[in-house]
Amino acid sequence: MSNVKYSYEQLKRFCNDAFVKFGFTVDEANQITDVLLLSDLYGIESHGMQRLVRYHKGIEKGLIHVDAKPEVVFETPVSAVIDAHDGMGQLVSIKAMNMAIEKAKTTGMAIVSVRNSNHFGIAGYYAKMACDQGLVGFAMTNSEAIMVPTYARLAMLGSNPIAMSVPAEPYPFFFDASTTVVTRGKLEIYNKLSKPLPDGWALDENGKLCTDAQRVLKNIVGKNGGGIVPLGGDTELLGSHKGYGYGMLCEIFCSIFSMGITSNHTHIGGKGGTCHGFMAIDPKVFGDPAAIKEHFSTFLQELRDAPKAEGAERIYTHGEKEILAYSDRLKNGINVNINTVAEMKDLCDYLGMDSVEYLGNVDFSSAKQSSYK
Amino acid sequence: MSNVKYSYEQLKRFCNDAFVKFGFTVDEANQITDVLLLSDLYGIESHGMQRLVRYHKGIEKGLIHVDAKPEVVFETPVSAVIDAHDGMGQLVSIKAMNMAIEKAKTTGMAIVSVRNSNHFGIAGYYAKMACDQGLVGFAMTNSEAIMVPTYARLAMLGSNPIAMSVPAEPYPFFFDASTTVVTRGKLEIYNKLSKPLPDGWALDENGKLCTDAQRVLKNIVGKNGGGIVPLGGDTELLGSHKGYGYGMLCEIFCSIFSMGITSNHTHIGGKGGTCHGFMAIDPKVFGDPAAIKEHFSTFLQELRDAPKAEGAERIYTHGEKEILAYSDRLKNGINVNINTVAEMKDLCDYLGMDSVEYLGNVDFSSAKQSSYK
Repeated sequence: MSNVKYSYEQLKRFCNDAFVKFGFTVDEANQITDVLLLSDLYGIESHGMQRLVRYHKGIEKGLIHVDAKPEVVFETPVSAVIDAHDGMGQLVSIKAMNMAIEKAKTTGMAIVSVRNSNHFGIAGYYAKMACDQGLVGFAMTNSEAIMVPTYARLAMLGSNPIAMSVPAEPYPFFFDASTTVVTRGKLEIYNKLSKPLPDGWALDENGKLCTDAQRVLKNIVGKNGGGIVPLGGDTELLGSHKGYGYGMLCEIFCSIFSMGITSNHTHIGGKGGTCHGFMAIDPKVFGDPAAIKEHFSTFLQELRDAPKAEGAERIYTHGEKEILAYSDRLKNGINVNINTVAEMKDLCDYLGMDSVEYLGNVDFSSAKQSSYK
Repeated sequence: MSNVKYSYEQLKRFCNDAFVKFGFTVDEANQITDVLLLSDLYGIESHGMQRLVRYHKGIEKGLIHVDAKPEVVFETPVSAVIDAHDGMGQLVSIKAMNMAIEKAKTTGMAIVSVRNSNHFGIAGYYAKMACDQGLVGFAMTNSEAIMVPTYARLAMLGSNPIAMSVPAEPYPFFFDASTTVVTRGKLEIYNKLSKPLPDGWALDENGKLCTDAQRVLKNIVGKNGGGIVPLGGDTELLGSHKGYGYGMLCEIFCSIFSMGITSNHTHIGGKGGTCHGFMAIDPKVFGDPAAIKEHFSTFLQELRDAPKAEGAERIYTHGEKEILAYSDRLKNGINVNINTVAEMKDLCDYLGMDSVEYLGNVDFSSAKQSSYK
């Protein structure tokens, strides 16, 4: 599949203007764009530009309410519960994480739990917000059910990512991962390429391991059973119950603390209901933040310097791949898949934006039909 | 291997008296015994009675200081750092979790991080302490390096378990698991039975997958390279970097916040240096704790009631196996492996305790030579 390369600035202008056309204010559009484009800069394309059309469809269908005002329904000096009232996930999440950060700066640590929201992009964005201010940040979200618990055959939990970011030199620790073995995006890639899935990723409608991506995806959409296994696989032999346990941890911070909708009940009957959880911890409550940062940085360097496995070139600490991608893409531009560009063009037409001005003269001969047509 | 069945009360008397003979006060002995025997009652034999001899050896070798007094070296209303001064892990950990609980009851949430400690038994014991008082509890510990990070060939992190317990009906949610795919105890069992390890558990000294338990264990002891893979395996295909990431989370709460010794430096040169992390969260900071508990209990019941995989009889929620084992063992007694009983007998002889009075008349003909001989 071919790509078109755009500068960060060019994509930012397109996104911002599109979100304003969707009905968001300039400030709101900026916030949403920032989340989406960090994802592309970090090399997590599944959660960047290519989500734009999905968000637009969510708004058109009434799943996402453009004018929703997040409401703080419960609050203490160390916590808050926010009802997003079906608003855009990024907007309530930035607000929620900022609350957690401000509270943590005063009290030392804080948790904010959000209900009735929508897809919020990459969890890591919000963990990074805390880290950028010298705090330890955590962010999680539940989602449409896709994880099949150990010994079940129906998806009951979401991909339920947990992200955490911790200050360190020469760059922060940044971990952002689903508690399923892989995300749905990976299945979609295999499906597009008509390749069999690796063993140990997905289950069929009877709860048996299955390598047929199309069948699994069809079952997920139809809620016929099957889905993706937890980190650790489909049996306890390799720790399935552990990935399932981390999925529960995510659910507790998101849907349980907020009294929101658990993954198995979200996205049913025209209602999203996604829930998020955020935590910020100020390291000053354990002593000297600079010393703690240095201590952690030393450990990270020891990990990178550890003896490599036979045939391995490098040991990564979490976040290094993202940092490398970030520098490269900011400097050299961001490759956008031609099919995504085709969708962006159609979106321009739909919204009355000049596609040539925003996207340039693109040869779409290798693009498949856009989902807008 | 044959077993001897003892009542909970009988084992409690033996343990208590042995720990007093080691030099602990009656109150301290009671605390340590309570941690060890909960492990046996929960069916986690690897961390129960059979650890007693190891603790005794730790004391004899000077690794564990019987008369150490844990010192609070830093404290805020939401946090504390405790230096255990090489004391018994259970004692400092009960103190630390009690501090976290008391602080959380006042402020809403708290974290206590501990350095220079020793093995603390099962992490779940401390998470349960918070849950027993209506709070959400977390407990973690680092340990002697045994987890090989993705693409490395040397163990750099411990088994780094994370435990969490959350109030629910008819019984609490209780999750306690290493962030490695399995614990060292599992390798030892395969080694004793001379069985090849399942694929995907361990690495040899070159960082290659290895099913030879003896070789892996020998390498771990000799720090020659190799060890156990993170939850998720040895490559990113099944999420190795995720298990490694959870291992890092554990390390951050334990050795980083406390400015203690990271797993790769513990147990070197006659020094333990184990670090622990504890967190307690009072659900009242999110609203009505009873309503939150009911909401969570409903989700847990939905999970248990979900459609089963073909051939599966039951879907467990975390903690159910432990609760089942607990009721059974409290009523019907606890099976102790004959080799462990032989060690207990030798310990009696060593400490001047009447082994027949404590353990009964046991036929040791099927026992291998005790490690005391």
